[in-house]
Amino acid sequence: MASKHKIIFQPEGKRGEFVEGTTILDAARDVGVDIEAICGGKLTCGKCQVIIEQGMENLSPVTDDEKRLLDRRKAGKNYRLACVTKFYGDVVVYVPEESRGGEQIILKEGVELSVAINPAVKKYYLELPKPHLKDDLGDFERVLAALREDYGIGDVEIDYEVLRKMPDVLRDSDWKVTVSIWNDKEIIDIQPGYKAEESYGLAVDIGTTTVVGYLTDLRTGKVMAVDSMMNPQVTYGEDVMSRITYAMQYEDGLEKLNQKIVDGLNKILENVCREAGISTEEVCEMTVVGNTGMHHIFLKINPQHIAIAPYVPALHCSHDVKARDLGLNITKGGYVHVLPIEAGWVGADNVAVLIATEPYNQEEMCLVIDIGTNGEIVLGNREKLVSCSAAAGPALEGAHIKHGMRAATGAIEKIRIDPETLEPEYKTIGNAPPRGICGSGIIDAAAELYRAGIVKKNGRFNLDLDSPRVREVDGTPEYVIAWADETSIGHDIVMTQKDIREIQLAKGAMCAGAHILMKELDVEHVDRVIVAGAFGNYIDKISALIIGLVPDVPVERIESVGNAAGVGARIALISREKREEANRIARNVEHIKLAVHPSFEKEFSMAMYFPHMDRKRYPSHEEVLKMRGAE
Amino acid sequence: MASKHKIIFQPEGKRGEFVEGTTILDAARDVGVDIEAICGGKLTCGKCQVIIEQGMENLSPVTDDEKRLLDRRKAGKNYRLACVTKFYGDVVVYVPEESRGGEQIILKEGVELSVAINPAVKKYYLELPKPHLKDDLGDFERVLAALREDYGIGDVEIDYEVLRKMPDVLRDSDWKVTVSIWNDKEIIDIQPGYKAEESYGLAVDIGTTTVVGYLTDLRTGKVMAVDSMMNPQVTYGEDVMSRITYAMQYEDGLEKLNQKIVDGLNKILENVCREAGISTEEVCEMTVVGNTGMHHIFLKINPQHIAIAPYVPALHCSHDVKARDLGLNITKGGYVHVLPIEAGWVGADNVAVLIATEPYNQEEMCLVIDIGTNGEIVLGNREKLVSCSAAAGPALEGAHIKHGMRAATGAIEKIRIDPETLEPEYKTIGNAPPRGICGSGIIDAAAELYRAGIVKKNGRFNLDLDSPRVREVDGTPEYVIAWADETSIGHDIVMTQKDIREIQLAKGAMCAGAHILMKELDVEHVDRVIVAGAFGNYIDKISALIIGLVPDVPVERIESVGNAAGVGARIALISREKREEANRIARNVEHIKLAVHPSFEKEFSMAMYFPHMDRKRYPSHEEVLKMRGAE
Repeated sequence: MASKHKIIFQPEGKRGEFVEGTTILDAARDVGVDIEAICGGKLTCGKCQVIIEQGMENLSPVTDDEKRLLDRRKAGKNYRLACVTKFYGDVVVYVPEESRGGEQIILKEGVELSVAINPAVKKYYLELPKPHLKDDLGDFERVLAALREDYGIGDVEIDYEVLRKMPDVLRDSDWKVTVSIWNDKEIIDIQPGYKAEESYGLAVDIGTTTVVGYLTDLRTGKVMAVDSMMNPQVTYGEDVMSRITYAMQYEDGLEKLNQKIVDGLNKILENVCREAGISTEEVCEMTVVGNTGMHHIFLKINPQHIAIAPYVPALHCSHDVKARDLGLNITKGGYVHVLPIEAGWVGADNVAVLIATEPYNQEEMCLVIDIGTNGEIVLGNREKLVSCSAAAGPALEGAHIKHGMRAATGAIEKIRIDPETLEPEYKTIGNAPPRGICGSGIIDAAAELYRAGIVKKNGRFNLDLDSPRVREVDGTPEYVIAWADETSIGHDIVMTQKDIREIQLAKGAMCAGAHILMKELDVEHVDRVIVAGAFGNYIDKISALIIGLVPDVPVERIESVGNAAGVGARIALISREKREEANRIARNVEHIKLAVHPSFEKEFSMAMYFPHMDRKRYPSHEEVLKMRGAE
Repeated sequence: MASKHKIIFQPEGKRGEFVEGTTILDAARDVGVDIEAICGGKLTCGKCQVIIEQGMENLSPVTDDEKRLLDRRKAGKNYRLACVTKFYGDVVVYVPEESRGGEQIILKEGVELSVAINPAVKKYYLELPKPHLKDDLGDFERVLAALREDYGIGDVEIDYEVLRKMPDVLRDSDWKVTVSIWNDKEIIDIQPGYKAEESYGLAVDIGTTTVVGYLTDLRTGKVMAVDSMMNPQVTYGEDVMSRITYAMQYEDGLEKLNQKIVDGLNKILENVCREAGISTEEVCEMTVVGNTGMHHIFLKINPQHIAIAPYVPALHCSHDVKARDLGLNITKGGYVHVLPIEAGWVGADNVAVLIATEPYNQEEMCLVIDIGTNGEIVLGNREKLVSCSAAAGPALEGAHIKHGMRAATGAIEKIRIDPETLEPEYKTIGNAPPRGICGSGIIDAAAELYRAGIVKKNGRFNLDLDSPRVREVDGTPEYVIAWADETSIGHDIVMTQKDIREIQLAKGAMCAGAHILMKELDVEHVDRVIVAGAFGNYIDKISALIIGLVPDVPVERIESVGNAAGVGARIALISREKREEANRIARNVEHIKLAVHPSFEKEFSMAMYFPHMDRKRYPSHEEVLKMRGAE
């Protein structure tokens, strides 16, 4: 009887005993350790490399073929390929992250979300036999044969631009190339040499006010660089409606709006690539999310019909467009995947938020609030989801606020006001002298002004207070957060009566939307609130509760998840399954048209109060104020 | 028992008896008459219209829905829809051509070839339910639902440019549109109103010297207009090799060559559309054939590698490219289908010739000769096919011949010379005064000069003849075909010694290629010769035999089929099955590289003689000369 030997797989610690001469890969499969081995042991992919922690001497010797693959991947000296390495004694094997099959990554902390990595674009390294007079197969057919032979990939199509460059790339690289295949069906790039470990995508969130791009490593899901900018369409109108009006009024209006965002995205692409030290042509796919208006304008589709009843979009489902058709400078054969939209203004950005937060997988009644110029709200659980959009305006993103600014160095992101002295304390990003107030600071300011009694529950300033910080300028009341000499801008940073009104409108719209959805689903309270938004640093949950931006809920049941739309766009970059899920979900959310809802006017006017005109809906309000006081 | 009634279907005359109340369509299916009914009786397609020849009074009354469909198709008063019309007495029904399912068309006379019509692009008329607040499905999803409902078509993709215009087209046409679907998988156009009967494609044959375009009705296969031009790349070199050299020598060489042909094709597109009274955007697909060099340059693929051993093309298989990626002005979402290439110079043009002549379906040993600047020759039958290409030069297309010209009004297309008087008779195209000599005239001239003894079998002029037409000018012998005063150009039209040399080179290359293929397949003689070529009117078979352009074969076994490459391109336009066949055939033809074949030099020098240096290969030569004399 052949003797048996023990093998332990780290970091999981799984183990088993096997007859001698078993390969590490076979043993791994037997004990349920998932090692990626694309080529199935043909010694072409080199994916299954493992690190031998103990028992190096108990292994079959390294062959030339194995050495070539290990060298190509610049593997360290304890590395072996699991598919060909047999063990003849006890061994301890460490499976490094990049060799784990069906790898899961955590995309966000706070709300944990793990996604199995399965990007639409995958790369395959090929060493092709050189043609000669007796083997004069065409270049494309030669590549197809190698894909079939080395990776078991059936016939795929080829992008025209890739076909064009293929003959020269093959010959310049001595017939060693890496091809990128999109959705298992089309070759969208060919690069000289071994590039299988360099696979990048750009996830983009086009907000009405803010545009963010995340350069992402498609093999790990890790963000390599982030860049954001003010949506350059802002010069044509601050909200979506005014931009659509612009597109309708001028013959080249849509063209101009579209060119602005395309130029902006190319700029972001350039910036993140420069930061990561790669060229823009190395980016092989883009995902894009945005509300219905941004979605249509980005695709250069006439947005007029989504602004007029019955508010029908050009399409709901996701759409893949060649980047070159849109004028985007990623690899010439690459695609842009535009996520699906729901209905009305509830667009691809909200679908992205949903696949990032997955309320449809919850037992609990979840409320997902995505704060933006157009806020989107979804309520529900695994049974049912309803959604609406609320025109909140850009106040919470810093626009329309006298000293509002984006989350950047010098932005006041946190404020506390002593109710006794009415003196503030604040914190700025980077601890720099203040330049303005970003989203989280704006919500803090409103909450603290209200808590300190400087602003009343109806939003009016109380001018009967004895503080130099509470004053009237040209008939408008305001509160001084920072005196000129503390700042880097040389004048006082204030919150004005008008600023408070803007915040009331924004929070009123969001809050009214949430309460209408609760009525629709006939629920008195929600179990969990997820607050998302691209408007800077995470908002303060207690402040959000104090002003009634969210419905009454225990503070520990509020999760502030930052730009979940951006996270959703990143998820779509690395997971084909999540793309399918997005299409499924988008069709299943029931959309409530707030603008024509009979209760909206009344709910909106009540929700403008801090926290709400109907105090019965905020039974925990006093307690929340105490919590803040006890901080 | 229900009474039975007779029904007769014309023009086939098939008949049967059926219980009363049977629909005409059901009866037709039962007796094996193929009536097209795409919608399956849902009263949406209107395809199944038939003409009632007798028994109009025995039919179920016309319903409003039926009337609407008949009106839409402008049907005459005896028309009914077979799917809903029931008969209650004897009837005679005529099935018009456009209602016949699986329709076959004859593409060429002479060589008969019938092809079942199944174009890649099909059109579907839709009347969509208008959206309202309770039905706010997106435009694309609305179209998908109607395609499913009316025609049973599953999910298809949509071209980006079509998606862009869809919202406006739908609303401007009151939700009545015609969509074009490519290969059952992508919507490539949407047009307002009922356009299902207007479906056009352009088949293009890019020759080294001549480019021809055929505007074709995709529903019938009929040619609506033809246009041809000199290949505009000629300014960069007369043969393929010199153009490839140009592309290699100048950085923008390929770009320039490509732009020339693209501009040329757009010009042809414009011309044929103007002639047919349609707009270029109504053309929904193009097919393109050409030799490997023309193929690569058309696709803007570096052609350098096909000119250097081992002569490997970028791809063999057919390829579909968006017309807009190539800069061609058919409908924005339309594709260009480029036929597959074999190997070496034997390109998509020869594949087109093969699917038009089908030697691979024959028992007999067929020789297919496609005469062009690059001639292609295929020999074989259903067992095996071998091919080669021969650099014949453009002489037979009229270039390099002193008075050579394209087949146009005034071109001498036929010549006879009296061996006694040495006086010629000629016929010109359009019976106009002669301007020059086209391809068929050039072959005639060589054959007749040889037959009359003016030119010897080695190609040299016999100057010992007593005729004013045989003379020497500046030391070069020549023969006067037309005196200056007969012509429209004001000077004598002649054939010179140099012209005869050019013809010898061309015919020698073709003939040598044919004989080498015969050796390869070890056959002494062929059963059938098919002569194709885009160089003007059909060549004279006896003249071709006299000069030895083709191997010795009974004259009745020679078929002159004109531009078979163009026919093949048209076939590919209307038949998806033939496209598949083309890909299959292209991979199965064995290619012989003439340039490196050990016998080529010797065969070539022997084949320069009229009809051949080895007279044993032309045992019928004397008999053929007699046939000509007896004409």
